[in-house]
Amino acid sequence: MNTHYTPREPTRTTPPLHGETSHAREELADWLRDAHAMEMQAEAMLKGQAARLENYPQLKARIEQHITETQRQARDVEQCLKSMGEDTSALKDSGGKAMAMMQAMGGMIMGDEVIKGALVGYSFEHMEIASYTVLTAAAEAAGEQEIASVCERILGEERAMAEWLSAHTPEVVRKYLARAESESAKSKR
Amino acid sequence: MNTHYTPREPTRTTPPLHGETSHAREELADWLRDAHAMEMQAEAMLKGQAARLENYPQLKARIEQHITETQRQARDVEQCLKSMGEDTSALKDSGGKAMAMMQAMGGMIMGDEVIKGALVGYSFEHMEIASYTVLTAAAEAAGEQEIASVCERILGEERAMAEWLSAHTPEVVRKYLARAESESAKSKR
Repeated sequence: MNTHYTPREPTRTTPPLHGETSHAREELADWLRDAHAMEMQAEAMLKGQAARLENYPQLKARIEQHITETQRQARDVEQCLKSMGEDTSALKDSGGKAMAMMQAMGGMIMGDEVIKGALVGYSFEHMEIASYTVLTAAAEAAGEQEIASVCERILGEERAMAEWLSAHTPEVVRKYLARAESESAKSKR
Repeated sequence: MNTHYTPREPTRTTPPLHGETSHAREELADWLRDAHAMEMQAEAMLKGQAARLENYPQLKARIEQHITETQRQARDVEQCLKSMGEDTSALKDSGGKAMAMMQAMGGMIMGDEVIKGALVGYSFEHMEIASYTVLTAAAEAAGEQEIASVCERILGEERAMAEWLSAHTPEVVRKYLARAESESAKSKR
């Protein structure tokens, strides 16, 4: 009987390493799967936002740029899992919980679409920043230097998006208030 | 009929200003109420986290410091509303939606308590940072300089907490992986 290439767990296509890094590898793979679900959810959320931002062209353009980045990040995370010998066939099914979270977040905050979107988007961006910070540390602990590099590069893109949102939020608020004021004035004429 | 001091809306105890800033004042008051609900939720979440962090004394201590800040922030936000002549008697009831959000976020991410807590806490901290960024801009647009100053001070505290979490996340991940590894080794003996 050839047991050498038999996976120990159903989702694993190569046998796990033993010793110091095996636990870190298992956690790393689990967290990469979570990150993939997060990117899928980010894409859905960003597309929804971009579609409703016709009055904020600069914000819309930055979000569209980040949609392209997000799609590439999801592919990169999938590639990291493959490089560890992990099965990636079930990746598409895991967006449900993230969806529930975004709906809850979306319902929570402010009544206005663009301001609500800015808050939820900024908060979600930092969920991603924290996730890739965790992943970079876990990849290093697991001795997966190449995965650590990929996660660090994605981390930089998430940070750049968060910084852009942070820098432009006051401007979006002022524009929103001015628009609301002028619409209210128009309706009184 | 004396309509001069009749509140236009049930929650308002002074008549709204008219002209350019009246809309901004209304939004500002609504957003301050949202911020108060957010701080109440932050307190509940942080207390829950601190209670379960006996193996991470440094993280626990920083969270406990932030609980004290959070309690003061909630009082400061309430004071801002009072200074605008807003009724604050209904403030305690509004934590429900934030609670739903945190439960959804908590269920979403990683299986481990401390790592999950770090991600959710970091993301929530940035929801607060975005909220006070919005509030500072809205207070300035409404001509409420003192409220803008309070919001800016709170913003600084939220940023400091987020930066601390960011700086200490890799260390928490390494400690978590090392503990998990040593417990797994113990259970094999």
